Amino acid sequence: MAQITKRSDDYSRWYQDVIQAAELADNSPVRGCMVIRPNGYAIWENIQRTLDDRFKELGHVNAYFPLLIPKSFLAKEAQHVEGFAKECAIVTHHRLKQVTVDGKVTVVPDPESKLEEEYVIRPTSETVIWDMYRKWIQSYRDLPLLINQWANVMRWEMRTRMFLRTTEFLWQEGHTAHATAAEGREETLSILEVYRWFAEDILAMPVITGAKTANERFAGAVETFSIEAMMQDNKALQAATSHDLGQNFAKAFDVKFQDAEGKVEHVWATSWGMSTRIIGALIMVHSDDDGLVLPPRIAGTKAVIVPIWKNDEEMAQVVEAAEKIAAELRPLVGNVHVDKRDNMRPGWKYGEWERKGVPLRMELGPRDLADAKVMMVSRHDRHKQPVEFTDLAAAVPAELERIQQDLYDRALKRRQDATVQVDSWDEFTKLFKGEGGFALCHWCGDGDCEQTIQDKTKVTIRNIPFERDESEGTCVHCGKKSNGRVLFSQGY
Amino acid sequence: MAQITKRSDDYSRWYQDVIQAAELADNSPVRGCMVIRPNGYAIWENIQRTLDDRFKELGHVNAYFPLLIPKSFLAKEAQHVEGFAKECAIVTHHRLKQVTVDGKVTVVPDPESKLEEEYVIRPTSETVIWDMYRKWIQSYRDLPLLINQWANVMRWEMRTRMFLRTTEFLWQEGHTAHATAAEGREETLSILEVYRWFAEDILAMPVITGAKTANERFAGAVETFSIEAMMQDNKALQAATSHDLGQNFAKAFDVKFQDAEGKVEHVWATSWGMSTRIIGALIMVHSDDDGLVLPPRIAGTKAVIVPIWKNDEEMAQVVEAAEKIAAELRPLVGNVHVDKRDNMRPGWKYGEWERKGVPLRMELGPRDLADAKVMMVSRHDRHKQPVEFTDLAAAVPAELERIQQDLYDRALKRRQDATVQVDSWDEFTKLFKGEGGFALCHWCGDGDCEQTIQDKTKVTIRNIPFERDESEGTCVHCGKKSNGRVLFSQGY
Repeated sequence: MAQITKRSDDYSRWYQDVIQAAELADNSPVRGCMVIRPNGYAIWENIQRTLDDRFKELGHVNAYFPLLIPKSFLAKEAQHVEGFAKECAIVTHHRLKQVTVDGKVTVVPDPESKLEEEYVIRPTSETVIWDMYRKWIQSYRDLPLLINQWANVMRWEMRTRMFLRTTEFLWQEGHTAHATAAEGREETLSILEVYRWFAEDILAMPVITGAKTANERFAGAVETFSIEAMMQDNKALQAATSHDLGQNFAKAFDVKFQDAEGKVEHVWATSWGMSTRIIGALIMVHSDDDGLVLPPRIAGTKAVIVPIWKNDEEMAQVVEAAEKIAAELRPLVGNVHVDKRDNMRPGWKYGEWERKGVPLRMELGPRDLADAKVMMVSRHDRHKQPVEFTDLAAAVPAELERIQQDLYDRALKRRQDATVQVDSWDEFTKLFKGEGGFALCHWCGDGDCEQTIQDKTKVTIRNIPFERDESEGTCVHCGKKSNGRVLFSQGY
Repeated sequence: MAQITKRSDDYSRWYQDVIQAAELADNSPVRGCMVIRPNGYAIWENIQRTLDDRFKELGHVNAYFPLLIPKSFLAKEAQHVEGFAKECAIVTHHRLKQVTVDGKVTVVPDPESKLEEEYVIRPTSETVIWDMYRKWIQSYRDLPLLINQWANVMRWEMRTRMFLRTTEFLWQEGHTAHATAAEGREETLSILEVYRWFAEDILAMPVITGAKTANERFAGAVETFSIEAMMQDNKALQAATSHDLGQNFAKAFDVKFQDAEGKVEHVWATSWGMSTRIIGALIMVHSDDDGLVLPPRIAGTKAVIVPIWKNDEEMAQVVEAAEKIAAELRPLVGNVHVDKRDNMRPGWKYGEWERKGVPLRMELGPRDLADAKVMMVSRHDRHKQPVEFTDLAAAVPAELERIQQDLYDRALKRRQDATVQVDSWDEFTKLFKGEGGFALCHWCGDGDCEQTIQDKTKVTIRNIPFERDESEGTCVHCGKKSNGRVLFSQGY
């Protein structure tokens, strides 16, 4: 069994080790792409189900648009092509042919299958979707159009890290069309609130909501909003974004509608997404040196029962009791697994389920069975308590709730402890050469100044928080006037 | 509103019209690719949920493998590359750059971003998955490995038709690894049975199960099994396939395991898939000249209530009653929609829900409300019956069950009526120049003879049915000895 590096020894190595030990993902033979293994994909399925239900409650429907985008489409929105042209996979041929090279048979792109216009594998789907919206939208009666897509996308990243930055990743991308600027903005913010709720209430991951600076906006957006979470190494991770696209894409793709008074106008747009990157954040916010820690609400397996026996007779009895308990608990809390493997000692099983992040473990031996109780152990804080069989239906859901809340509280405290107001450039550079964290600082509002700060320190403005100190001050870097503090941090 | 062409006038045009009228899909700006619109995608989501639940009950888990496959991987299995090299999208560059052509700014693949090894967009994932299995499988304890993937795949088709044959399509692909040939075969057949159950019990689509001939096998399989359904134009459609891959991929990718006795051996494999093509079959089996017909078990909306009113007061009353009925029915049957739109006459609404294939309609006007009843109308046979409010909880589920069964019976009868035993070549050619259908004929078992039949008539052997006449006879084409009848038909 592979050892997990300690966070304090090598945070980055620890992260890789946790992924490997929990069998969440693996490197693939394709540059920058990973394989999401069943344990990791189960988390993604839970994320999908929860978000999808919420989007649908808010009136959205799912659809599917092509993987490939004609290269000319990218060029239609000037900022968009600027943002995505440099990192995209390009399809140029549609047939391989066998050839003999140095006496060996191999395959090469058939020159006769060269495409007239190359395609790009979607880095995001605004262009191809807005090209369709031109056909679907004519009247105000066609609005709002609230469509979401679950899909794979590809951005040719040079430095990749599992979940956090991979060439291919999975995501949902919402693309909505509205009759007014106000409705578009309302949608953008309503989705941001869904993301905040999902991060905080489901993933137990506290986030800062706010607007991105102009430099950090999505390529083609009027305004980008984000949720930003703090990882255990004090760095920030952008966990989701929601974009107000104004009329930029409607103009680029000529999408107009006739309003109730007969006036023809361009449509207002939003787009928003959360990706498999969130799994990287989930790992980094909660896990510890023993492996993965998962909040109960997103864990595929909520609890595992490990029966303990010395002989076949005992085995039959404890396994039967464990199955009975699991069957009683499942309707109350979701999947409860009974680990019946007979080629492994209980201690090994404990270790394995700890590495895999199952929130709750119940140990059940012959003596426990005689006493009609189990030993219940929580993954994240190793809290241990005996629980009588008759109390399990109340105690297990309650303990899962306690774990969920405790993980959130712990992450929030960590963030609060590592969040400071910084008012001088000396202090700023000192902070980020050392511990790092979230620094709330005055900023002049100038993009060049922001870029200079990043060039000097690798620190970026994560967002301009909705809830922020709006007193006047002077920019932490250039000393010019500032109207309020923004959130600085090193980011993933 | 677009007219729907009659089946008898132009079957192919009718199919396109049904798709357009029900807003299931649309042509995209990408060659051979379609957009699956929300109404079509809702069907796919139901298909996914039902199949996914069943796969999981049988012990399968989901995972995700890369979209791109190094071109050299395809070449590792000789038949596989033969089968797929001619129709695949090839990624050759990873960056676009802006250039000025004839005074106009455009983007082209940056020659400096040319890849050392080209990638192919997966036409199917055996190669990349078996490359990973080499890492994951060492011992018999790692087997069976039962993994499924929901993904998009791409095959560069020259002639495309929505859902039936598109360059990109969505599917699930199962890839399993086993310790023995017998286990592999058992898995292959167990999944074929899932597909049969799904087609017949959920989609109300009767199918013939059987083995493909050697000519029609999946590229790299030892044996391919299929389910074949008859469309309303008497042609066959292969609705899903399940492949016994033997040790072909394990050998190509060097995947071995140590058994309990310490002996090292290559692993046995299966793969199996059902795709968005099944939606094309679903449309063609049940729909009629008024539009889409959906079996209740796969329909997103099971029933629609259309309230009828003449003034605001009546509107308030009937809408309130309709909402109450819908709320009572939802826990019993699933989604029930109340059509409250006030800018449309009831007759228009009826037509729209008929085109969209909602199985059941309930009309509720002020007089109905006074009598405490609704008029219930079934989509597929226009059966009309008044139902008292107090009977709805029993009558609606019962009517949905009747519709489900009736659609199956109707499709089965159509197939039985168009299935014949054919014993002479004259009869054979006459049949397929005329009405077509399923022809059960003796066949010599020779692949060249099979190919000649196809070249002459476009008719193929759909499969060698499990349940077939195994009496001896003479080949319908060449007259040589035959051990039983096989299923011939023109296919989609």
